[in-house]
Amino acid sequence: MTRYPDVTEFSARTLEAIRLVIGSRSAALHEPTFGGNEGQYLQDCLESTFVSTVGPYVEKFEAKLAAFTGSTHVVAVGSGTAALHVALRLAGVGPEDEVLVPALTFVATANAVSYLGAVPHFVDSDEMTLGLDPVALRNHLSTVAEVRRGICVNRSTGREIRAVVPVHTFGHPVAIDDVVALADDYGLAVIEDAAESMGSVSKGRHTGTTGLAGVLSFNGNKIITSGGGGALLTDDPEFAARARHLTTTAKIHHLWEYVHDDIGYNYRLPSLNAALGCAQMEQLPEFLASKRRLFEAYTQAFAPIENVQVVAEPPGCQSNYWLQTLLLDEALADQRDAVLEATNSSGVTTRPAWTPLHRLGPYADCPRASLPVAESLQRRIINIPSSAGLT
Amino acid sequence: MTRYPDVTEFSARTLEAIRLVIGSRSAALHEPTFGGNEGQYLQDCLESTFVSTVGPYVEKFEAKLAAFTGSTHVVAVGSGTAALHVALRLAGVGPEDEVLVPALTFVATANAVSYLGAVPHFVDSDEMTLGLDPVALRNHLSTVAEVRRGICVNRSTGREIRAVVPVHTFGHPVAIDDVVALADDYGLAVIEDAAESMGSVSKGRHTGTTGLAGVLSFNGNKIITSGGGGALLTDDPEFAARARHLTTTAKIHHLWEYVHDDIGYNYRLPSLNAALGCAQMEQLPEFLASKRRLFEAYTQAFAPIENVQVVAEPPGCQSNYWLQTLLLDEALADQRDAVLEATNSSGVTTRPAWTPLHRLGPYADCPRASLPVAESLQRRIINIPSSAGLT
Repeated sequence: MTRYPDVTEFSARTLEAIRLVIGSRSAALHEPTFGGNEGQYLQDCLESTFVSTVGPYVEKFEAKLAAFTGSTHVVAVGSGTAALHVALRLAGVGPEDEVLVPALTFVATANAVSYLGAVPHFVDSDEMTLGLDPVALRNHLSTVAEVRRGICVNRSTGREIRAVVPVHTFGHPVAIDDVVALADDYGLAVIEDAAESMGSVSKGRHTGTTGLAGVLSFNGNKIITSGGGGALLTDDPEFAARARHLTTTAKIHHLWEYVHDDIGYNYRLPSLNAALGCAQMEQLPEFLASKRRLFEAYTQAFAPIENVQVVAEPPGCQSNYWLQTLLLDEALADQRDAVLEATNSSGVTTRPAWTPLHRLGPYADCPRASLPVAESLQRRIINIPSSAGLT
Repeated sequence: MTRYPDVTEFSARTLEAIRLVIGSRSAALHEPTFGGNEGQYLQDCLESTFVSTVGPYVEKFEAKLAAFTGSTHVVAVGSGTAALHVALRLAGVGPEDEVLVPALTFVATANAVSYLGAVPHFVDSDEMTLGLDPVALRNHLSTVAEVRRGICVNRSTGREIRAVVPVHTFGHPVAIDDVVALADDYGLAVIEDAAESMGSVSKGRHTGTTGLAGVLSFNGNKIITSGGGGALLTDDPEFAARARHLTTTAKIHHLWEYVHDDIGYNYRLPSLNAALGCAQMEQLPEFLASKRRLFEAYTQAFAPIENVQVVAEPPGCQSNYWLQTLLLDEALADQRDAVLEATNSSGVTTRPAWTPLHRLGPYADCPRASLPVAESLQRRIINIPSSAGLT
């Protein structure tokens, strides 16, 4: 192993397996591919002069998203965080409520709860889906919560638990039917955080379309991008109408009067970004196929290496394979940082999972379940180069 | 006057005067002009693949804004509302504080206060600048407020008044030195809402650069646009560093760890939008000159009509003339709606001022000063077609 004198054998073998797939180039964790009508649509958007929140590309993008996901209503907004913020507000979350969110997710999931003055309540993950574990959550709620006149109450804090936010982690669908069944039993609204799972399907339904509402993200690191952007999915027409209203400063329609009947947001997606999103949507099937091939190539490359697996889609699901994930056996967890060092210093971008949110300063005092799986996953996950352009 | 059988003589003469300037075409209230490097920069941005919140165009746009405004630090964000939200938070505004804002402004000024759980406290306008009247505000504060250990307290509500947000209405600079002097006397932070006044200068200083911080907007209806966008201006390096941190999810810099030390936002401007903004900034001097010519043409066209004036920049100031404003004498205020009808139904877009915020449902119960000038202005203002492309 003279080629990697500073790293352990496991690090060297990991880097070698990645190199088998991606070749000798440098690789980002995830970068977009612009191989379609991006330039043309941007030019067309400029020529229309409608580059802002009113413009035909916003409606086109929403229509494309609705057709692809099967969601009846789609409201395009400036970010996934904005979509989640509004969805939670419309689900009835308010100051001093609690919202169940996985500890192992990007911080934006909890931030959206905080914007409403509500408190995230952290729950554990499932080793197979990497997402919220409905069995563990049911056990937890049976201990800490009770339903009083249809409202779920946390007995220790006295606060009402309004909603649960399952996240389809790295694109892998969570066991959404079990989450919905549990939520029904406890009177919780289900808002699906499908920010990472555009293109992922669970038992025939697109992620984000089973709960009361779902949110997508089109940030630059996602499977399709609009520069920045997000969307809210729902089948409830009233929910959709209110989302559209709140995200356009709650302005009442009138030819010239400026009347706003609620405290709204300037959250609509600009048409310029929607134009980019439209071009990306046209390539989504290609991106999904590329990413699946990348998963298969990594699986093959890592097959000879013991004690590590490439995370596969859960049974009955099609994942978008947004991020390719190595899951180390617990015995190898102490080698995670050596792998991160060896790969990143060789131009191969890799990342661990997020710091579990209950270990971040601003969320350290929030209520939480026992989190053994989230903690374990966080020690053992390494995300590796995942761009559609790699295959 | 047989050409306008359905409208009063005043409506007909107003429409005629506008038509003298803009000709027989239809005209929006304000639409952007894309006559520079917009297409090229968007294409370049695509080719770089950096279309999202990390990318060279974000830094370029910030540098151009800093050079033009003279602000030491500029943080580009997704909207003017987002900039104001963060600026107010960094100014120390929190739940149950009050913030002084003009009653006559776009609702976003008050919304940004509400996002922090704080309460807007509405104050009156000045007939000449259309913005906050520092003399009326001093009188009001001398009645309702007192300074206790350096903190301004509203004696009737018991709440602390933390900040004042002067708005440079329609691009006309407010009397900022008097606002700052008053704020110093009362221990208030000054956050300038310069969303409408990119390019406006007051006594040699660009609007938004005199207070603790200022905010700009590049929404589609503004003098320059980035599709959606805004920026925070400040000369305080610590304030700027914290703004940059909070707008990028408060993530601590690390090669691979995800640690966030505060509840932050996904508020940074995408590079795609910054690319558009860069091209627009290059044309700003032209736009300013066009708009000034438009003001002069309207002034000439309306000179023969009694009881109405085209609003001019305050003495000692250069306004960007973002919106061209007719101000009717009080005796003609009851004809405002007839003018709005006549013009809008003839393809000439005109608008009244905003509904004063204390008359909106969500803000009806907020504390407020006596608001005679804001109420009067609102009855008498008509904004008329103002695009740079009209001359």
